[in-house]
Amino acid sequence: MAGGKGERFWPLSTKKVPKPFVKLIGNRSMIQMTVDRAMGFVTADHLFVVLGEEHAAVAREQLPQLAAHQFIVEPAGRDTAPCIGFAAVHLRRRDREAVMVVLPADHYVPDVHSFAETMSAAIACARKGDYLVTAGIWPTRPETGYGYIHSTERATEMDESCYRVNRFVEKPDEARAGRYLSEGGYYWNSGIFVWRAEVVLRAMELHMPELRARLEGIEEALGVGDAGKVKDLFEGFQRISIDYGLMEKADNVLMMRAGFAWDDVGTWSSLRRTMVLDINGNYVSGRPVCVDTTDCVICGEDVKLGVVGVSNLVVVASKEGVLVCDLRRDQDTRQIARMFEDEDAEDQRL
Amino acid sequence: MAGGKGERFWPLSTKKVPKPFVKLIGNRSMIQMTVDRAMGFVTADHLFVVLGEEHAAVAREQLPQLAAHQFIVEPAGRDTAPCIGFAAVHLRRRDREAVMVVLPADHYVPDVHSFAETMSAAIACARKGDYLVTAGIWPTRPETGYGYIHSTERATEMDESCYRVNRFVEKPDEARAGRYLSEGGYYWNSGIFVWRAEVVLRAMELHMPELRARLEGIEEALGVGDAGKVKDLFEGFQRISIDYGLMEKADNVLMMRAGFAWDDVGTWSSLRRTMVLDINGNYVSGRPVCVDTTDCVICGEDVKLGVVGVSNLVVVASKEGVLVCDLRRDQDTRQIARMFEDEDAEDQRL
Repeated sequence: MAGGKGERFWPLSTKKVPKPFVKLIGNRSMIQMTVDRAMGFVTADHLFVVLGEEHAAVAREQLPQLAAHQFIVEPAGRDTAPCIGFAAVHLRRRDREAVMVVLPADHYVPDVHSFAETMSAAIACARKGDYLVTAGIWPTRPETGYGYIHSTERATEMDESCYRVNRFVEKPDEARAGRYLSEGGYYWNSGIFVWRAEVVLRAMELHMPELRARLEGIEEALGVGDAGKVKDLFEGFQRISIDYGLMEKADNVLMMRAGFAWDDVGTWSSLRRTMVLDINGNYVSGRPVCVDTTDCVICGEDVKLGVVGVSNLVVVASKEGVLVCDLRRDQDTRQIARMFEDEDAEDQRL
Repeated sequence: MAGGKGERFWPLSTKKVPKPFVKLIGNRSMIQMTVDRAMGFVTADHLFVVLGEEHAAVAREQLPQLAAHQFIVEPAGRDTAPCIGFAAVHLRRRDREAVMVVLPADHYVPDVHSFAETMSAAIACARKGDYLVTAGIWPTRPETGYGYIHSTERATEMDESCYRVNRFVEKPDEARAGRYLSEGGYYWNSGIFVWRAEVVLRAMELHMPELRARLEGIEEALGVGDAGKVKDLFEGFQRISIDYGLMEKADNVLMMRAGFAWDDVGTWSSLRRTMVLDINGNYVSGRPVCVDTTDCVICGEDVKLGVVGVSNLVVVASKEGVLVCDLRRDQDTRQIARMFEDEDAEDQRL
């Protein structure tokens, strides 16, 4: 899944080249790293990238190992449930028994081998029965930015690392997150899913009948090659996440306990947390000149950037623009991106 | 005097277009504002701008009211004493009785009328006798960034606002600056001087004989139009300020107490101090998007700049580069400019 605007990563992530295609970490983009990771358990010809039409060109450039038909173009952005349903329809058309591994393109997983092991175990579970398998991450801090999965009962008949799911829990406040950590039995909801395409479509029929009906129409339209109808139907989807629409309601969910370190690269502070820092606690990319600067995120690609005497700041300068933000306020950078987007739209009208 | 690199104002001030030619305040450059101010007591044909050759083009563009001969090109930057001596030689060649008003091109003086009054009074003093007249500013805070003039005895025979000078004092520490303020009799040394060209050259003969001898050689070379010799001689000057080389030693110094508000625009915090601030205490230029930002200097001309949740920062983004600096550290931005300068020089060699 390479949708997502990544507005919180403005000015590196832009409308034209959003987060999945940005080299936030090192010299591979998020989608490139996600594909690299998937190659640990699947061959390239079995990889499919769901993305918006406006990013097809940059995606094909970044992923030359994929053929044209491996890019599934979403006619509109409607959150994860329609995206996943749309992909499931595509995959089932190719193979009625297809097992789907759903990977968001904005995760950071340094240990590719351990990741492949967990995914392979989850795939085995998904083949064994009508399960919706999700990856649960062992929490290492009282994170309030993630949802949690409460799982206490093992499903050892499936796999040693497999659990039944008691319930999904929305993003907690700090006190609650602390309790989850000390009580145990709570895992981060990674948003990584493994299931047969057939199984997720059936679950949608049960819990999201409207969405399922619309998907059926789309499947028919795909059958006769009516792209206009696909587009019309897709645009009619309501925005809804797979967690809210399906996972919280289904009773055939299993959780595979992840054996790998994981982070959802959603904010500058998450980027700083996951990366190797310099001796002053800074995550630095590009060649900025930093004097007495500590505990910052400093990105200055292709721009002369000087930073003096500051701490706990995000400073990002690119050809697109410049962001200076308190690290604790990095959730609030969205509005900056939106404001400039609105300005651009206005300038174009003038 | 439009020399000065203004490295502390990088990235607005650059090697190509340094501080005197930058629109730091509103839509007039510092040199334009200095010329505007001088026009309050002198006609345009009596204005001369001393500057480096590499800035002659931008200066002529910004000051179309001046003729070519009104730009005095310094063959090298050697601080204020050689600069002023060189200008004095030029002016005396035109008029042996010429009175010189020396104005640095980086001052902020909002009250042009009061400035013209003080200058006219100083000019009258300089005509009356062999005096080196300097403007002393009534200090309004315990500033450690300026030198001081200690003056307690009026010279009412010259002018009501005229004082004899006890001594020049170098930049004090904070405790001492506080004492100067409470004791009284101490004035900021503005670096504005008024004297006859003949008088300052004579004073140089007495206190800076080496410099004076070299100036004589330059005068001869100018007489025969030998630009190469002028350049050679000029480059041989030692760097020395007029304060250190002359004013602190001379005994014919008078101080004109300034009736105008004044600031030496040397740092970002001095800029913030002199300018109208927004309701959050920010000095803002350009069209940055600022969220919860207080007591900052924010300049974002021709660049998309977003600032979130910060205080007491300098954030300046231009096509040249980006600076983020604690306001209290704005003396230390020089090294940033120098580092990028060195990099540029290296890139050019490669």
